[in-house]
Amino acid sequence: MPKTARKPLDAFVFDAYGTLFDVHSVTTLAEALAPGRGAELSRTWRAKQLEYTWLQSLMAGDGFVREDFAQVTAEALDYAIAALVLPLDEGDRARLAAAYLTLDAFPDAHATLAALAPRPRWILSNGTLAGLTPLVRHNGMEALIDGVLSVDAVGVYKPAPQVYALAAQRLALPPARIGFVSSNCWDAIGAKAYGFTSFWINRTGAPIDRHGPWPDHVLGSLGDLEGSDALPPR
Amino acid sequence: MPKTARKPLDAFVFDAYGTLFDVHSVTTLAEALAPGRGAELSRTWRAKQLEYTWLQSLMAGDGFVREDFAQVTAEALDYAIAALVLPLDEGDRARLAAAYLTLDAFPDAHATLAALAPRPRWILSNGTLAGLTPLVRHNGMEALIDGVLSVDAVGVYKPAPQVYALAAQRLALPPARIGFVSSNCWDAIGAKAYGFTSFWINRTGAPIDRHGPWPDHVLGSLGDLEGSDALPPR
Repeated sequence: MPKTARKPLDAFVFDAYGTLFDVHSVTTLAEALAPGRGAELSRTWRAKQLEYTWLQSLMAGDGFVREDFAQVTAEALDYAIAALVLPLDEGDRARLAAAYLTLDAFPDAHATLAALAPRPRWILSNGTLAGLTPLVRHNGMEALIDGVLSVDAVGVYKPAPQVYALAAQRLALPPARIGFVSSNCWDAIGAKAYGFTSFWINRTGAPIDRHGPWPDHVLGSLGDLEGSDALPPR
Repeated sequence: MPKTARKPLDAFVFDAYGTLFDVHSVTTLAEALAPGRGAELSRTWRAKQLEYTWLQSLMAGDGFVREDFAQVTAEALDYAIAALVLPLDEGDRARLAAAYLTLDAFPDAHATLAALAPRPRWILSNGTLAGLTPLVRHNGMEALIDGVLSVDAVGVYKPAPQVYALAAQRLALPPARIGFVSSNCWDAIGAKAYGFTSFWINRTGAPIDRHGPWPDHVLGSLGDLEGSDALPPR
């Protein structure tokens, strides 16, 4: 399709953790608390956190109620500390969990969000509103984010289609007219399966996942969003 | 509760991959095909295989149809080979996938299954019937397994409660009267959330997962099943 025939997307929806906000400050604190093991702790914690969101979503039913992201995050941290046999106490755990409330945005996040205006820019996240709101405020993004949506409104975690539907319904747009942006490949794939125009931000050159439809665009950074094919020429 | 008051369970349901059948032969072949990287390939492959079952189960809906375990296993292998940058061709991939059809049972599997008779002993697995039936035959277990159930009957992977319900319905027993046995902690937790009397076979001394109700029993091997509290005195 020639470039002149492209119609720019009508709105953008962003994942939060790892996409707009860098979890590196958690790693820094983890390294301070467990010297030489910080990166490993952060990696194990994050992997279990995601695993638990998927498992709890699948287990939900008569016999089991899904817990929120703050609770799942605390459980995953307990697992990671036990798996790595680290001598961290309750105070250390509380500090690590609290670090999620003051994550820094990636350096190109503000400029990218600003460039997408006046089109709506929303956040759709596994996190709770109580966890996400402080992040937006901490990074001075109140004027750059039009709204924040939590999976808590539908009671199941990503990549369940009900989660993505939440954003499409709130924006009252056809899914394909919405750009969904995530640095989590499985999230970008889930969004594509739902029907969004999907962008995977692959900062690390990771291999693409194989379990579903590939994202429409694979970009190296948030900054690349501005120049991507789905956006209007600047 | 004193031992004399215990009532033995009425039936047993076993997970297949990793519980009754050892995936070590896959590792051996992987090591032969990718010297020095076999264990890493096997580990990455298995982790992605499980991840993809959870993700596909959650994504399923109007826009996406879950694939069967053979397909998910092939996709996870493709990912693992790409992630580890291994020079394996289509023939290598086919040989690795085929290794799943001739896995060996753990050394104590036959004696344990025999000791549980005449109570029903079933398999409930993420695998396809086409993948599970050859395993039972390869290990000469036809007389030790009363039936094989695949998640394909309900169209979603473990730990969705519908999967566990399949076994309870087929056995026509209250879930708590059925012993569910898995070496996958998340599977034993999912089974417990559903209502089974759950046994986690923790061969490696791994930390327990934190995202749901703990299994009723944690054993070091299948052989320990015979002496566990939930079984009648021999």
